[in-house]
Amino acid sequence: MRITVNTLLIAVLVVFTFGIVANPALAGNNPVDEKWWPGEYGPDDTLGATQQITPAKRVAAAKLVKQGKIATLGMPYYNGMPLVPGRTYAMSIPSGGGPTHGPLSWPGEQFGQTFMDEILTAEIGQVGTQWDGLGHSMIRIEGAEGWDDDDYFYNGYKLKDVGGPRGLKKVGTEHIASVGYFTRGILIDIAALKGVDVLEKGYSITLDDYKAALKAQGIDDASAGDVVLFRTGWSSKWGNPELTPAEHAAINAEVGSGEPGVSPEICDYLIEKKISMIGSDTWGLEPYDFSKGAPESFAYCHINLMVRHGITNFENLDLSVLSKEKAYEFLFSWSPLKLVGATGSPGNPIAVW
Amino acid sequence: MRITVNTLLIAVLVVFTFGIVANPALAGNNPVDEKWWPGEYGPDDTLGATQQITPAKRVAAAKLVKQGKIATLGMPYYNGMPLVPGRTYAMSIPSGGGPTHGPLSWPGEQFGQTFMDEILTAEIGQVGTQWDGLGHSMIRIEGAEGWDDDDYFYNGYKLKDVGGPRGLKKVGTEHIASVGYFTRGILIDIAALKGVDVLEKGYSITLDDYKAALKAQGIDDASAGDVVLFRTGWSSKWGNPELTPAEHAAINAEVGSGEPGVSPEICDYLIEKKISMIGSDTWGLEPYDFSKGAPESFAYCHINLMVRHGITNFENLDLSVLSKEKAYEFLFSWSPLKLVGATGSPGNPIAVW
Amino acid sequence: MRITVNTLLIAVLVVFTFGIVANPALAGNNPVDEKWWPGEYGPDDTLGATQQITPAKRVAAAKLVKQGKIATLGMPYYNGMPLVPGRTYAMSIPSGGGPTHGPLSWPGEQFGQTFMDEILTAEIGQVGTQWDGLGHSMIRIEGAEGWDDDDYFYNGYKLKDVGGPRGLKKVGTEHIASVGYFTRGILIDIAALKGVDVLEKGYSITLDDYKAALKAQGIDDASAGDVVLFRTGWSSKWGNPELTPAEHAAINAEVGSGEPGVSPEICDYLIEKKISMIGSDTWGLEPYDFSKGAPESFAYCHINLMVRHGITNFENLDLSVLSKEKAYEFLFSWSPLKLVGATGSPGNPIAVW
Amino acid sequence: MRITVNTLLIAVLVVFTFGIVANPALAGNNPVDEKWWPGEYGPDDTLGATQQITPAKRVAAAKLVKQGKIATLGMPYYNGMPLVPGRTYAMSIPSGGGPTHGPLSWPGEQFGQTFMDEILTAEIGQVGTQWDGLGHSMIRIEGAEGWDDDDYFYNGYKLKDVGGPRGLKKVGTEHIASVGYFTRGILIDIAALKGVDVLEKGYSITLDDYKAALKAQGIDDASAGDVVLFRTGWSSKWGNPELTPAEHAAINAEVGSGEPGVSPEICDYLIEKKISMIGSDTWGLEPYDFSKGAPESFAYCHINLMVRHGITNFENLDLSVLSKEKAYEFLFSWSPLKLVGATGSPGNPIAVW
Repeated sequence: MRITVNTLLIAVLVVFTFGIVANPALAGNNPVDEKWWPGEYGPDDTLGATQQITPAKRVAAAKLVKQGKIATLGMPYYNGMPLVPGRTYAMSIPSGGGPTHGPLSWPGEQFGQTFMDEILTAEIGQVGTQWDGLGHSMIRIEGAEGWDDDDYFYNGYKLKDVGGPRGLKKVGTEHIASVGYFTRGILIDIAALKGVDVLEKGYSITLDDYKAALKAQGIDDASAGDVVLFRTGWSSKWGNPELTPAEHAAINAEVGSGEPGVSPEICDYLIEKKISMIGSDTWGLEPYDFSKGAPESFAYCHINLMVRHGITNFENLDLSVLSKEKAYEFLFSWSPLKLVGATGSPGNPIAVW
Repeated sequence: MRITVNTLLIAVLVVFTFGIVANPALAGNNPVDEKWWPGEYGPDDTLGATQQITPAKRVAAAKLVKQGKIATLGMPYYNGMPLVPGRTYAMSIPSGGGPTHGPLSWPGEQFGQTFMDEILTAEIGQVGTQWDGLGHSMIRIEGAEGWDDDDYFYNGYKLKDVGGPRGLKKVGTEHIASVGYFTRGILIDIAALKGVDVLEKGYSITLDDYKAALKAQGIDDASAGDVVLFRTGWSSKWGNPELTPAEHAAINAEVGSGEPGVSPEICDYLIEKKISMIGSDTWGLEPYDFSKGAPESFAYCHINLMVRHGITNFENLDLSVLSKEKAYEFLFSWSPLKLVGATGSPGNPIAVW
Repeated sequence: MRITVNTLLIAVLVVFTFGIVANPALAGNNPVDEKWWPGEYGPDDTLGATQQITPAKRVAAAKLVKQGKIATLGMPYYNGMPLVPGRTYAMSIPSGGGPTHGPLSWPGEQFGQTFMDEILTAEIGQVGTQWDGLGHSMIRIEGAEGWDDDDYFYNGYKLKDVGGPRGLKKVGTEHIASVGYFTRGILIDIAALKGVDVLEKGYSITLDDYKAALKAQGIDDASAGDVVLFRTGWSSKWGNPELTPAEHAAINAEVGSGEPGVSPEICDYLIEKKISMIGSDTWGLEPYDFSKGAPESFAYCHINLMVRHGITNFENLDLSVLSKEKAYEFLFSWSPLKLVGATGSPGNPIAVW
Repeated sequence: MRITVNTLLIAVLVVFTFGIVANPALAGNNPVDEKWWPGEYGPDDTLGATQQITPAKRVAAAKLVKQGKIATLGMPYYNGMPLVPGRTYAMSIPSGGGPTHGPLSWPGEQFGQTFMDEILTAEIGQVGTQWDGLGHSMIRIEGAEGWDDDDYFYNGYKLKDVGGPRGLKKVGTEHIASVGYFTRGILIDIAALKGVDVLEKGYSITLDDYKAALKAQGIDDASAGDVVLFRTGWSSKWGNPELTPAEHAAINAEVGSGEPGVSPEICDYLIEKKISMIGSDTWGLEPYDFSKGAPESFAYCHINLMVRHGITNFENLDLSVLSKEKAYEFLFSWSPLKLVGATGSPGNPIAVW
């Protein structure tokens, strides 16, 4: 999830207007109820739950390829695509009337080689199909006994220690990018379970929903190292590059006004299952309906999955082909880019079955 | 390969000073000796040689995963890494002293959620580990009988028809990104064959070298749909993010002064084998030594693989782990990002064996 | 004016729905009714009408400084400001939790020097307060007898000849930036003349309006080398950096839905007066109301002032202080940035009286 | 001055290798020897020493325009120009083979309107000709009695309080940009005084030099509100856009290896004179020769002029025309861009005499 300060202001306003949406399940839960670091992978760990993906797990995952069918799970990136307000995606083709480069020599007077390039400015891990790495979410602690005031990343790394103007140490994307995710993936198709194209904004997927989907789909529960992908239908609201700016703006407003998402109880459950990554076809994993109030706890799953357990999060996936093909269990294969010091990565993961 | 106009000027100067390095193999070869489009995949094709990767090919490729070992083949991206002069890679962490976003609400007065992001400006398909898509290379034709003057992409698409300030039609990366490359990969370790760490600048890998490597490594020749990766050792010249700007500059000058690479005869051979992609640990695939003169034909393989046959090209790969592990045959799994209208993609492909 | 392809599509749609808004004044006028180049400054000229600003003119202009009052005429630049759809303005402070640079040494253990920077991506001449240089507007000619098909800039420079991926030759901003505009400026306050805060969208300022304003304000008509600024009140619709993204979006939609502007007859008149620059507090100089249809000729003044006569155009100026102070005649002092090959420049011109 | 962390590392290394270059003049001087805030303009001030430029000062400055001659003082901005390592300047013309926008309608079937734009990524205040605003330099204080640990800007504003990911409060460029600099400017031509084209790297201009130049040039000493520009000849080392990348790299290395500059005693003297701005044709105002060691105090003038007295600093100016014309006293006219929250501004100031 990528929330801007402005979005927060809206949310805060909403809270004052509509009141907090209480969540009893969170009673007693706070980010410092226990010292959560160093985690199970040691005090210097930079790889998190990718370490659940063992060689044996990879061999087993490869065996899920039976028909040789493939789906790529990224959404298209284009100027005008839905973005959290304040984000940038601006691609251009440098040219000025001809090719970007050339012509270069080629035998024969009538021929040459020419080349086109592009140049892009974007939040690299935070735009469109986006993977949240271990450098994205932090817990801010101020005035808590026994804790230094700071922003804490996964494994207790503090912003003061690992921050920097051109990248973060310890929690940068390059670490997980050295091993990637080549493992069993499962689709939890809640939209199909409920018989709808798109779940309602703000709908919080329950653990019962999750278990019902497993049963309906005839697949085994998540196990250590798995990637678990939730389909809500939300990304079907996206437009396409051919629309007008006004249409892009209207779509962006609707997409960002909320979303269905997974409940805290599911995240707690999957943490126990020791999955390596969660994913969804939403922009922020968790349920929001900003017209009804802000959640008491903004991003429970982000904090508990990523910061406390090193389980990463993939957003804005296109899960429509998997749903249509009823491909509920598959080889999931992807690695983030080795962006040194970055907080995430763009991506186009592969599912093969 | 990404050549700037300035590099070209150097090259042209070099030609006048040292003379052309003649290449008899090219005699009679020119980009219009035959009409090369529409190609075998039809006049509207946008997928090129990825179509050699059939479902059966994918099933067979997955069976190459025996030990569950993995290597990620991307080089790290960082401010200061080697770049063709004129290219940009500039990443920053927006902050101004605190987190990029937040704090957002969390139950308890002492806690909050905060988030870090990054913002990047770069040539997206043309920097560091880079995949050349079908929108990168063109053949410029001027004054040839029977041809319109224009820059021609794969399948005869003309720049005049498919160009645009924010992206290219027909040849944009989003097309191949819908299917990706999940196939057999092979490593052709020429540096190991020759018993050196790095091949000499300008060394042109011959077809005999290729066949000798296959034999020495005990693997079968390339077949339809394969990804064929050539290791020269050149990327071992890269530095790391900790070096000083002066060290970065010196490394960049050396890396860009030339490189070993594959000869035209290898490219012709692999075209016949109907591979889907070629790759290497060099920035430009083909051999150059700019101190000795410019090649008569600048990028024979680029033109003939990509423009004429839809076989793409992956550059600046890190093949060192595969070499060390003697992993000569493996599952190659990767898809470019769905960058609408782009000419390439960054990447971090996965090899599993 | 900066029109995107998408805006064009809207406009084209509007035309089909509402019909063309006929403009009899344009009858017989077309961009090739006479050969308009080389112009009066010679075939190699790159400075256009700045050449009307003689040393004597500068001396006279300096004498307009009587009270020592000053106004800066730029609008603020900020993420979220009104932009033509598709434009980018994205500024960040690189930090990651601390200063951008430092600490550097300072005598004494407890002290150091630190520095903050920012990084920006934007259309540099085309965002917010923007000056249209001679590299911005072109006339496209296709199939006209006696003319090569091409896009023609000021003085007949063709895109084919002067274009390039990293900047334009001959018409780049660096040329005019070597001399700048230090001259008499006059305010034509049409909003005040009509007794309104903001003129109506689509209102076309007539030559009679212009003359009535001169009379009401008690100033002399434009003369050679002058900068003539039209106030419509339109930029008062802008918001400020503190607004929410939703508010920014609403403001942007309203600002971009049209604007009041100057009529062709005024531009023809000022061309005869040999002014050096026109300016306004609108985004596109000329009148539009996209709800009522598109103009028969999209940007008559752009084409005739800039392309045919080398008279440049400054948009999105803040003229409110001049209006409030009734400062109708003043020293106008400004030079674009020396952006080599650029099509325009951001700016914050100075008026002193 | 814009120093990167890497440059700092070099400098630190140099210090250990060559030892500190002691500077007796600094004895007893440290950034907290007295509480320097609130300053003379009050605790909420955001305008600094621009307030020395009164209406009467402006009227007097305008009277310096006698011949109507003009010089623009900015250096050209282009891809490849000298930059502090790690900085970015990347401009492209979005096109992809045709115009950026259009064609838009024009009466007559053979004509249309087309437009070119550019897109830029750069540190906006920190690249090429650059004005250091009040948001650039800070004093880091740690462990000093009576002071909170923090980074302190002009007027005691703390980074913790005014920092932000998209801009700085209180010290952003928009404040000074509301009033600008329209005042008396003087050139102190030390290169001419010494009879050289370029002063030696590391040469520290003394107060005696300053006074000798005033005398030789026949102009009065600096007075309140003046802009004082020092010419060293250093910017004559710059190249031009036509050079090769290798030539650009060599020039950049030489330009950044040090520079002549003003001594602390001059800055102290000009602070007493209450000037509004200092400027030079160097990248960092103060003298450095990194081959000989790092200065004991890195940027004495930056800290004392800007942070303690609100006197800003303009770098990389082109003062060659003023020198050639012996224009030693002139009207200086310029305002930074209204870049909300920015730390500086690009610029092309005007001198008229």
